[in-house]
Amino acid sequence: MLLNCDIGESYGTWTMGLDDQVMPFIDQANIACGFHAGDPMVMHHTVQLALKHNVALGAHPAYPDLQGFGRRSMAFSPDEIHAMVLYQVGALTHIAAAQGGSLSYVKPHGAMYNDMMRNESLLRAILSALKQIPGELKLMAMTTADNQALKSLCAEYGVELLLEAFADRAYDDAGFLASRSIPGAVHKDPDAILKQVLAISRGETIQSINGKPLYLEADTVCVHGDNPESVAAVRAIRQALEGQAY
Amino acid sequence: MLLNCDIGESYGTWTMGLDDQVMPFIDQANIACGFHAGDPMVMHHTVQLALKHNVALGAHPAYPDLQGFGRRSMAFSPDEIHAMVLYQVGALTHIAAAQGGSLSYVKPHGAMYNDMMRNESLLRAILSALKQIPGELKLMAMTTADNQALKSLCAEYGVELLLEAFADRAYDDAGFLASRSIPGAVHKDPDAILKQVLAISRGETIQSINGKPLYLEADTVCVHGDNPESVAAVRAIRQALEGQAY
Amino acid sequence: MLLNCDIGESYGTWTMGLDDQVMPFIDQANIACGFHAGDPMVMHHTVQLALKHNVALGAHPAYPDLQGFGRRSMAFSPDEIHAMVLYQVGALTHIAAAQGGSLSYVKPHGAMYNDMMRNESLLRAILSALKQIPGELKLMAMTTADNQALKSLCAEYGVELLLEAFADRAYDDAGFLASRSIPGAVHKDPDAILKQVLAISRGETIQSINGKPLYLEADTVCVHGDNPESVAAVRAIRQALEGQAY
Amino acid sequence: MLLNCDIGESYGTWTMGLDDQVMPFIDQANIACGFHAGDPMVMHHTVQLALKHNVALGAHPAYPDLQGFGRRSMAFSPDEIHAMVLYQVGALTHIAAAQGGSLSYVKPHGAMYNDMMRNESLLRAILSALKQIPGELKLMAMTTADNQALKSLCAEYGVELLLEAFADRAYDDAGFLASRSIPGAVHKDPDAILKQVLAISRGETIQSINGKPLYLEADTVCVHGDNPESVAAVRAIRQALEGQAY
Repeated sequence: MLLNCDIGESYGTWTMGLDDQVMPFIDQANIACGFHAGDPMVMHHTVQLALKHNVALGAHPAYPDLQGFGRRSMAFSPDEIHAMVLYQVGALTHIAAAQGGSLSYVKPHGAMYNDMMRNESLLRAILSALKQIPGELKLMAMTTADNQALKSLCAEYGVELLLEAFADRAYDDAGFLASRSIPGAVHKDPDAILKQVLAISRGETIQSINGKPLYLEADTVCVHGDNPESVAAVRAIRQALEGQAY
Repeated sequence: MLLNCDIGESYGTWTMGLDDQVMPFIDQANIACGFHAGDPMVMHHTVQLALKHNVALGAHPAYPDLQGFGRRSMAFSPDEIHAMVLYQVGALTHIAAAQGGSLSYVKPHGAMYNDMMRNESLLRAILSALKQIPGELKLMAMTTADNQALKSLCAEYGVELLLEAFADRAYDDAGFLASRSIPGAVHKDPDAILKQVLAISRGETIQSINGKPLYLEADTVCVHGDNPESVAAVRAIRQALEGQAY
Repeated sequence: MLLNCDIGESYGTWTMGLDDQVMPFIDQANIACGFHAGDPMVMHHTVQLALKHNVALGAHPAYPDLQGFGRRSMAFSPDEIHAMVLYQVGALTHIAAAQGGSLSYVKPHGAMYNDMMRNESLLRAILSALKQIPGELKLMAMTTADNQALKSLCAEYGVELLLEAFADRAYDDAGFLASRSIPGAVHKDPDAILKQVLAISRGETIQSINGKPLYLEADTVCVHGDNPESVAAVRAIRQALEGQAY
Repeated sequence: MLLNCDIGESYGTWTMGLDDQVMPFIDQANIACGFHAGDPMVMHHTVQLALKHNVALGAHPAYPDLQGFGRRSMAFSPDEIHAMVLYQVGALTHIAAAQGGSLSYVKPHGAMYNDMMRNESLLRAILSALKQIPGELKLMAMTTADNQALKSLCAEYGVELLLEAFADRAYDDAGFLASRSIPGAVHKDPDAILKQVLAISRGETIQSINGKPLYLEADTVCVHGDNPESVAAVRAIRQALEGQAY
């Protein structure tokens, strides 16, 4: 089980996230590409930090909306999504290459991620972009109770899929994220977070928000490095996963 | 003698330049990369048009200033210039690659171009970026009466140099562009433009704005496609150069 | 019957619309405020042109999306809409005041206009902003077959309503604009445009896209100044309306 | 002696400054207007906080450069400066008016502030904008050993001047800020900061960075609220100034 984290989300003089503190504990860095966060210098420093800790580099493309942090859905055509993914992934690729690094995957950010999971034409636009990019980039996408359609689509484009679960989010019975407006949708208790990650990593079921057993196939778990508490949670998860490995 | 032209400078719903009309007559397309003009879709269509006409693809990176069209000098450090060139060239590289195209050179735009010619640390930042990018990109830079320092610097970085002259601009005795504020600094007469290009292409001297003979070594001449008159001038240059070739 | 036109939609070096040509024939200028188009200098020149022709000044606030020209719906809360309307109207107010002008109305642009007509909470956000702005600004909004709810809401906030019809768009039976995807949704024939405007101005019914009679109450008609054809259509409308006045 | 502070410099999801903590101790809030920092919602909340603490509202207009935080000089013409000051001050004026507040002064930010102090044509552009804005806005500008030219210019435009000193910066013999590159240019010791403010407030000389006595006429002192240390320094200054008042 790998740990991935959204990272490099500072912009200009504004700082976000404790990247220095969380980087030692993760496997995959989802690096902002300048559309929702990040700028060329922030991207440079983020790549440098990831390479120092042997963390895999992933592009984290988004809708062009700095003010809204890429969290607002915007009506783009598949062609526009295709071009903006190529643009952002290309930008990060060259910044990484200048330091001897290369990207291994792409995880769309925020509203683009959500829209991609709901709209096959957008997902196809992203997959076709990934197929056209040299280097066999994988797509990181959300696992649910049934990943068959997602897997078929990735196979059709010859793009390898990384299924992602969330450490601190409750799921509905179909394996979709429970809406944040529902009480209990976000786990705040470090033990609950840890328990969910370990169950998923062992291939065990977790409990849906309605108390039903739910099996989530996953290659990687999304963790956060926003504040000292979340960094502590990531460290605990890392230690538990390594303990488990012995 | 090659002809290069700034191209792909539309943005969103705003159109600039007669790209469709000028593309058939040029050899090298300096394609805007989204910082002073261009957006991912505009870049996609511009690459498509250039490939259709077998025009070489060049990146045209700029300062991040849409409103000022990249023409205002801004105080960036060499590290910032380095990162923003990697970013923009990378973005265009992937958009081109998705259509089977690849870049062959980089020509900084507007204020970045002027600043690079005056400030060695900025030129070094750009050269080091080009050296780090796979594909042996050449640098297009301004020819003057004495290109020795420029050539040495490019050689130091192992970056091939494309010396560029301007079709419609008068030069001072040292081979720098006469300031636009001086009468006669911009050639408006099609015959004067044609005469200047042909002289440079034949290795003959031109007259400086002070009437002195000036020799400009050049690999390529910058032409414009802003309006019907400039497109007509480019066509006349192209015909004359081809006639000359027989 | 007044004629209104979206105007001042150039940006930086990019030009849009034949503002100089259409301004003499309109009564109300919907001036872009920098979020979808326009910048402080463009706004200054647009105010200057409108004042020269005694055209009423209106603010044309929009979602912050230059690339998409404010045409993409974006998920903003009512509080965000409220603040961004105050921001944009304030900006234009001061630019107008510096030339002795003052605003008389506000017409939201593009996706904000459409969203306001469909979502009462957004309309309330805009109305509450207008009420808080000194100067008794009117709201320009879309007329349909039944404007009762719209009128009640404006009355609740004490904001005067300007009902707007469209010169070149076909309507469905309920008086909503026929979708552009339907054949015949946009009138291209100058005579059809003129006929529609005159009928509305005389308080006569027009034909809906389904051939049914439709009465549209309107204070103003939206015309366009994008190209020579649309400017010619506006001139013809102006002449017909004046002839009618005799 | 009044205390002023740059405030409202968050943007979207990015937070900057401890506005809540420093607001109770200052007299004048220099509120970012969206060009270097701030957005309509941030501006709304900042006005609300300032009004709660009876702090005077000032506009803090800047060059349009979010990434560079308005700290990079950019080549704008006086006409452009004039229009962008009207735009930003107007935007904040309406956001303030919606809460019953009104602006009393304008302090240009960062590079615009520095450029205004060095370039009379830019200062004139700003003064002419302030004169055209209803409400008799004052200009906050930097005090030096000789403010005669500055005072004359403000008098010419009928704009009241607020002379500003800096709490934590060392001065050269002419009363200009010592360059940050010189050791000792920025006071880090809270006692040194306090001592400088008290001396200026009592009309006593301070020591220039070269050890010479320097008299600085000042109406207000610029303090910072970036971090707990700077907030503590502001509190200490406030207490000392009040103690002094008895």
